[in-house]
Amino acid sequence: MTLTGAEVAQHNSKDSCWVIVHGKAYDVTEFLPEHPGGQKIILKYAGKDATEEFEPIHPPDTLDKYLDPSKHLGPVNMATVAIEEKVETAEDIEKREAVALRPALAEMYNLLDFEAVAKRVMKRTAWAYYSSAADDEITMRENHAAFQRIWFRPKILVDVEKVDFSTTMLGTKVSMPFYVTATALGKLGHPEGEVLLTRASRKHDVIQMIPTLASCSFDEIMDAAEGDQVQWLQLYVNKDRDITRKIVEHAERRGCKGLFITVDAPQLGRREKDMRTKFTDDGADVQSGSTTDNSQGAARAISSFIDPALSWADIPWFQSITKMPILLKGVQRVEDVIKAVEAGVQGVVLSNHGGRQLEFARSAIEVLAETMPVLREMGLEDKIEIYVDGGVRRATDILKALCLGAKGVGIGRPFLYAMSAYGFEGVDRAMALLRDELEMNMRLIGCTSVEELNPSLLDVRSLGAHGNGVPKDVLSAAVYDQLRNPPQRSKL
Amino acid sequence: MTLTGAEVAQHNSKDSCWVIVHGKAYDVTEFLPEHPGGQKIILKYAGKDATEEFEPIHPPDTLDKYLDPSKHLGPVNMATVAIEEKVETAEDIEKREAVALRPALAEMYNLLDFEAVAKRVMKRTAWAYYSSAADDEITMRENHAAFQRIWFRPKILVDVEKVDFSTTMLGTKVSMPFYVTATALGKLGHPEGEVLLTRASRKHDVIQMIPTLASCSFDEIMDAAEGDQVQWLQLYVNKDRDITRKIVEHAERRGCKGLFITVDAPQLGRREKDMRTKFTDDGADVQSGSTTDNSQGAARAISSFIDPALSWADIPWFQSITKMPILLKGVQRVEDVIKAVEAGVQGVVLSNHGGRQLEFARSAIEVLAETMPVLREMGLEDKIEIYVDGGVRRATDILKALCLGAKGVGIGRPFLYAMSAYGFEGVDRAMALLRDELEMNMRLIGCTSVEELNPSLLDVRSLGAHGNGVPKDVLSAAVYDQLRNPPQRSKL
Amino acid sequence: MTLTGAEVAQHNSKDSCWVIVHGKAYDVTEFLPEHPGGQKIILKYAGKDATEEFEPIHPPDTLDKYLDPSKHLGPVNMATVAIEEKVETAEDIEKREAVALRPALAEMYNLLDFEAVAKRVMKRTAWAYYSSAADDEITMRENHAAFQRIWFRPKILVDVEKVDFSTTMLGTKVSMPFYVTATALGKLGHPEGEVLLTRASRKHDVIQMIPTLASCSFDEIMDAAEGDQVQWLQLYVNKDRDITRKIVEHAERRGCKGLFITVDAPQLGRREKDMRTKFTDDGADVQSGSTTDNSQGAARAISSFIDPALSWADIPWFQSITKMPILLKGVQRVEDVIKAVEAGVQGVVLSNHGGRQLEFARSAIEVLAETMPVLREMGLEDKIEIYVDGGVRRATDILKALCLGAKGVGIGRPFLYAMSAYGFEGVDRAMALLRDELEMNMRLIGCTSVEELNPSLLDVRSLGAHGNGVPKDVLSAAVYDQLRNPPQRSKL
Amino acid sequence: MTLTGAEVAQHNSKDSCWVIVHGKAYDVTEFLPEHPGGQKIILKYAGKDATEEFEPIHPPDTLDKYLDPSKHLGPVNMATVAIEEKVETAEDIEKREAVALRPALAEMYNLLDFEAVAKRVMKRTAWAYYSSAADDEITMRENHAAFQRIWFRPKILVDVEKVDFSTTMLGTKVSMPFYVTATALGKLGHPEGEVLLTRASRKHDVIQMIPTLASCSFDEIMDAAEGDQVQWLQLYVNKDRDITRKIVEHAERRGCKGLFITVDAPQLGRREKDMRTKFTDDGADVQSGSTTDNSQGAARAISSFIDPALSWADIPWFQSITKMPILLKGVQRVEDVIKAVEAGVQGVVLSNHGGRQLEFARSAIEVLAETMPVLREMGLEDKIEIYVDGGVRRATDILKALCLGAKGVGIGRPFLYAMSAYGFEGVDRAMALLRDELEMNMRLIGCTSVEELNPSLLDVRSLGAHGNGVPKDVLSAAVYDQLRNPPQRSKL
Repeated sequence: MTLTGAEVAQHNSKDSCWVIVHGKAYDVTEFLPEHPGGQKIILKYAGKDATEEFEPIHPPDTLDKYLDPSKHLGPVNMATVAIEEKVETAEDIEKREAVALRPALAEMYNLLDFEAVAKRVMKRTAWAYYSSAADDEITMRENHAAFQRIWFRPKILVDVEKVDFSTTMLGTKVSMPFYVTATALGKLGHPEGEVLLTRASRKHDVIQMIPTLASCSFDEIMDAAEGDQVQWLQLYVNKDRDITRKIVEHAERRGCKGLFITVDAPQLGRREKDMRTKFTDDGADVQSGSTTDNSQGAARAISSFIDPALSWADIPWFQSITKMPILLKGVQRVEDVIKAVEAGVQGVVLSNHGGRQLEFARSAIEVLAETMPVLREMGLEDKIEIYVDGGVRRATDILKALCLGAKGVGIGRPFLYAMSAYGFEGVDRAMALLRDELEMNMRLIGCTSVEELNPSLLDVRSLGAHGNGVPKDVLSAAVYDQLRNPPQRSKL
Repeated sequence: MTLTGAEVAQHNSKDSCWVIVHGKAYDVTEFLPEHPGGQKIILKYAGKDATEEFEPIHPPDTLDKYLDPSKHLGPVNMATVAIEEKVETAEDIEKREAVALRPALAEMYNLLDFEAVAKRVMKRTAWAYYSSAADDEITMRENHAAFQRIWFRPKILVDVEKVDFSTTMLGTKVSMPFYVTATALGKLGHPEGEVLLTRASRKHDVIQMIPTLASCSFDEIMDAAEGDQVQWLQLYVNKDRDITRKIVEHAERRGCKGLFITVDAPQLGRREKDMRTKFTDDGADVQSGSTTDNSQGAARAISSFIDPALSWADIPWFQSITKMPILLKGVQRVEDVIKAVEAGVQGVVLSNHGGRQLEFARSAIEVLAETMPVLREMGLEDKIEIYVDGGVRRATDILKALCLGAKGVGIGRPFLYAMSAYGFEGVDRAMALLRDELEMNMRLIGCTSVEELNPSLLDVRSLGAHGNGVPKDVLSAAVYDQLRNPPQRSKL
Repeated sequence: MTLTGAEVAQHNSKDSCWVIVHGKAYDVTEFLPEHPGGQKIILKYAGKDATEEFEPIHPPDTLDKYLDPSKHLGPVNMATVAIEEKVETAEDIEKREAVALRPALAEMYNLLDFEAVAKRVMKRTAWAYYSSAADDEITMRENHAAFQRIWFRPKILVDVEKVDFSTTMLGTKVSMPFYVTATALGKLGHPEGEVLLTRASRKHDVIQMIPTLASCSFDEIMDAAEGDQVQWLQLYVNKDRDITRKIVEHAERRGCKGLFITVDAPQLGRREKDMRTKFTDDGADVQSGSTTDNSQGAARAISSFIDPALSWADIPWFQSITKMPILLKGVQRVEDVIKAVEAGVQGVVLSNHGGRQLEFARSAIEVLAETMPVLREMGLEDKIEIYVDGGVRRATDILKALCLGAKGVGIGRPFLYAMSAYGFEGVDRAMALLRDELEMNMRLIGCTSVEELNPSLLDVRSLGAHGNGVPKDVLSAAVYDQLRNPPQRSKL
Repeated sequence: MTLTGAEVAQHNSKDSCWVIVHGKAYDVTEFLPEHPGGQKIILKYAGKDATEEFEPIHPPDTLDKYLDPSKHLGPVNMATVAIEEKVETAEDIEKREAVALRPALAEMYNLLDFEAVAKRVMKRTAWAYYSSAADDEITMRENHAAFQRIWFRPKILVDVEKVDFSTTMLGTKVSMPFYVTATALGKLGHPEGEVLLTRASRKHDVIQMIPTLASCSFDEIMDAAEGDQVQWLQLYVNKDRDITRKIVEHAERRGCKGLFITVDAPQLGRREKDMRTKFTDDGADVQSGSTTDNSQGAARAISSFIDPALSWADIPWFQSITKMPILLKGVQRVEDVIKAVEAGVQGVVLSNHGGRQLEFARSAIEVLAETMPVLREMGLEDKIEIYVDGGVRRATDILKALCLGAKGVGIGRPFLYAMSAYGFEGVDRAMALLRDELEMNMRLIGCTSVEELNPSLLDVRSLGAHGNGVPKDVLSAAVYDQLRNPPQRSKL
């Protein structure tokens, strides 16, 4: 039986709360207090069509997974649903104009340029979700800053007419030594979401890692691939291992070539910029000091299923359910790299999750510099593939990682920003810019192939220097009440 | 015999100066030149009711202690005292509006947020007293900055479903590894003063250290505790040891569980921001260069009784008068920690007094990193409990201290700011935020209990780097007359 | 047969594109897609006289070299060419006024002052070409910053009445220990171009290195020399070695005294500031993401002939075609200095090309500090002359390089800026200022001759410190969205 | 015969130039080209009374010394000299108001406060002379910054009721461990000049070092001393040793107790801020590039007599002409301290001349930290007294120097600023502030006498860190054209 808009509209309160998503009605009354994103946002759509708000931040199968079938009320005759007159807000207008006045794509000369444009044109809440990070966001900025503490010792008079920066990752030949790493909620930046990145990866012959928390469904993203295009799967491990098993088996069946188990996020981080952007002052004043989790931003809202109990003891089980190479994403100390070798996994991604999890987790590049000499000392450097991600913005960053021993680097936010600013063409150009920079910089350091990259091409003596807590601690600086010399007396 | 307001009002000059405090009159004529806060402030209230000014910055028993009984003139019929029409000053209005427009409490996401609000809503002089520090306030800022030179080496794949960050301090079980450290003059921030902190400590099951220079009386603060709530006593040692003995014996009798003798303040520091805020230009011009102590801020005004002669030789005496554990608060070098072990005290607090005493005293966290390896080398690490305070603003700061070997950390100003901004609810939320951060960060570093925290989880190589005197030297930068390239000629 | 302006003017489109340069017409229709600077700029002058645009950024023999003789259409009767009414643009007016209001030359007290004036008076595109550098321009700024990490250990009580800072370079006696290094496109800064530098070098008795990419022809620059004035040749090696051979043989015949083969530029760098300045938004919107090379600034436009295959194997060939001393310009690691000794060349210039090539190539002064101890250890320090360039702005910079073991330093941009700001008199004064500074600082460090300069006069312990990626990463800082404390509620 | 104003007024040109100074006329026509300060300034007063301009920047005996007696034209009847109507300039008015609105003296809480006021009230040229330093003024700022790289390791539980920071210098008992070091041209800051400092030194029982380039005459300054007040003499050694001998013998006869020979100024430094302030654009345009010395500020104008040939060989001669202790002022490396011991002098002042001479000369405090361990190793630490100056602004600076082994510190500019801002009372208060700070900080580091100060009270590990050329390079930063992301298109 098809419901009418009027019927749904009656259930518009805390006591009886129905919402419409993709033409179907759901009774979420009992679910309200459990909603990871808080009740408030749902109540805003009580009795109404919530599709537009729901879509980008929920994986497509969310309702099936989390809402009991008995609460699925069935299809709604959408013609009977009152269309809410959409009033353009001041922000809407500002953003519409910002899009219209974007610089020409040809003016994008580096990856940071896309970030500048994305900041201008993206919806404020979407920007906050992508750009935010843990606590004071020092770690996020350190990720890029750390590369700048590494300087080159380039070779000269090498015939570099032909330079080849293709390489292999887990046996797959790729045209450039980076991959598109997994990032959540692609539709916040562009209506097409992750499949857009699939197409760009195809065009530039690099690997895409599919995120668990994608806006597109896993199959949509796999379907978007063409020919022998290779994709990997990033996995948040569910408390319910059966669900996890199904995901893994399905991925393998669909042809995924690598399983990247996220190990740095037993709990998703607090990101205050994101929380602050989402905060809505509903007039309620000071009341419940200890209820701190009223608004935790998009990140936590979508991640409550992640299993904090995941441990080394689970690895054999993963090895038993799949033949895909298994890699641990988010390793942060050399001791755990050695453990990974002992556990028999095929690789690790040194990563601090783009600075979004533990504040003051060291940059991947610094952990890499700590790791490789130990592995070489132990003769383990070929037993495992090491990847790094976080803060990569320039081809020089990529080359530094490879000189230190990385097989490749993951790049995430920059492609999201390029996509948010200019869609497919943005990502396309971003990759083309990296290709240009790679070619030039391979020549300038005097290497013709990835094999020639080695630590002697770098000066890393300052890499470990974290003097005086730079990147700057913005909030502390803001609240500090600066000393002043005595002012002149006032004239009167 | 009860005095009338008119009688008191006649004694309104330097030659005969009476004031009313809490309904009683006092003859302070002879006391004027001895007043640690200077005569000026008293003379402002000569012949009038000074209660409102007197209250927050004097311990309740001040008059009994410091003014000869012969000068206690007895009760005043307050109905006969002319009520001063209170004219709202520009600052009063600004602050009243600032309070009205405070952000919602739910928008407070970290401890620095409270500081930002406190700066807006507090009376300027009160803010100056809480926020000021020694000389150029470099040490105060270094206290927090030092934590940011420590980076984590987190473990992954540890089952962190359940994390437990409770611990014990001097045998008391606490729910979180911090305590509310002693800070003076709580009523400057909130009319309830320190008892508000007592209640919040109770709610969150942490220990409160009662300050000697509290605005509430010691007994008021003890009385505010409930059940088996544990409190400690911070002690400034009086020149008159009899007074000190009475305080200590009284505290023990009332059930205090620890005696923290302040050892970093033989003389209370000069805090120029505080002094500058209190300065009142009374029209007098340049005259007496060498009389520098005309205005020393609130700090010195209340502290003239502190004994600068206190020394190691006094420790046995303290041990003889109390069975409470004795701890030295303000130790600043490993040599003195070892001395403390030899002296048989139960613990030390590494501290530079929040940067309010000796400018360029190192941060507690840096002294801790120097201390623990030496103690371990000497086999003394279990002979004594080590606490640190200063600059703690994030759970990561707390965890770093515990990894390095601290038993717990003291937090002072942040709770004062939370209290000044939002009262009890503010402190409640501040503690809840720390609890949230602790839980998350325990998980993210891969530890399930306080016992698992250890130095291998940290990279402290940069901790000792004080390059180029950062934090920034604000005054020097302000007075420096920057070089300029030659300007263009003027058009005319 | 002489063409008329009207005839040429008919060929004003992509389909048939003629241009006039120096009174002769050329058919560039087929050349359009090959133009290193892009078609757009040529099409702007289709059918017109392009001399003024062409002149400063093309070596005089460009058309002969790159355009097939069949496309040389012969002389144009310039009287028949319509003179384009030159409309003064807003920038033209601004610059004209800036020139009129320049500070007096006598106000120039140091080399940076010239840069400040040049920035004001130069055409924006010319300024961008001179001042731009690779990627984030961190390397360019590091070049000067590195000198500031070296401090002096001066000697006192040395009779310094007479100080002599003359020295020899490749056997030539020079009055000061620097030379004018090769920089491209001198006419962008001043209509006279490089010959102006020739005259200034003569006046101050220093050597000029003639650039391959000069605006004046090689012979013009040689002809401008007087008496026994010494000049060197900087060489970009052409893919066509025959052209290179002719250049070298011609230079030797004309009396050049040193051949400096550029080895740090197998491909000329991307300089984004330059590219951005040249970008012209022609209304075309987002389209071709992967076509990144549509606008690469002046640098690449003029350099497509450079051979990226140049290698150590080519050195003997150079030695076979000339008796001039051969030096490698752009060496960047001690290993390659040793190779250079083994290859039997007479010297090297440690250089990162003014920060215009590889971003994060270390400064020459840092490479020098790495190199000399190794050479001394190997007994090779006298087998080769070591020069450095990059970032030299003060006599103290020069003296530091000499103390560390350099034979001399090259100075480039500062003389271009002086020339652009004040012509010959500017360069003259710039050199005189250096002379003054050299005299004073030789005295102040207690040395009377260049021979006395040695490493013990320096404290270089901090030279290798690249902590926290300073110089500042401007773009990253700009795109970073700073955290904020919660704002006050809005009043209404 | 007495001249009339009218007679003098006729000689008002380059061809015949007379000036009046202190009521006497002088023919300076032939002297014009030799004037160290340039002709321009003299010609401004040709035919007029130049006393007001002449007075503060020339030692009183200048004319007798430098102008041949034949050019002394004798007394002028001042009643006949036209009094120039003094028109108040915009700067005069601004400064007059600034003086009127100075903060109360009692608001001065530290030495930097005086500098802030002095900058506001001093004549711009006078301020420039006092505040300027060499090249980019990095060294001047480093002098203070270096102290901030030293942190304390204070002792606790020391009986500090009585602290004594008196000490002895060259056998003289002083109340505080600093002296007023020699600074030139005191009357630029205050009409009384150096004698004002004499009186303040007397009041606070510290030693004053009398400068060679004082505005007051040597005898005036000696005469201003009272009782057994001790003074020292700072000496610039004249090319004419006979003049030097007379100065030294006279000083000894007058009772000077120490001879401080300046050894860091064989040539007085270029101070560009000073030069720029003095520059007068007389309409002359670009002309003579190589004439750089047209305006060198006050410093060089007054110092042309200094002998750059002074060397170690001269020391025995000094020892032969005086029994005063001889000290070398401006030593900058440990090797020269050892030489000083061998030469048998009584002491050295480690100093870089307030950063006014050699840019990038290390701070005295850093040289001290290098020196003392070597002296102790060689057993020479008691053979010589070591003083330091430069950058001292806080008592903590003084105590750090003493901990490292200095006998005392010299303070210069801060007293000049205090004097310029508030006259005698300013200097009086400045010294009283230091006394207060010394007392407090002696207590806070746990020392009761100067003898107890020792290196273990300090953490100097970061002292030698000059990373990234901080203090900031202002001019380089100003001329750097920052990169920008592409801007939005313009709306039209």
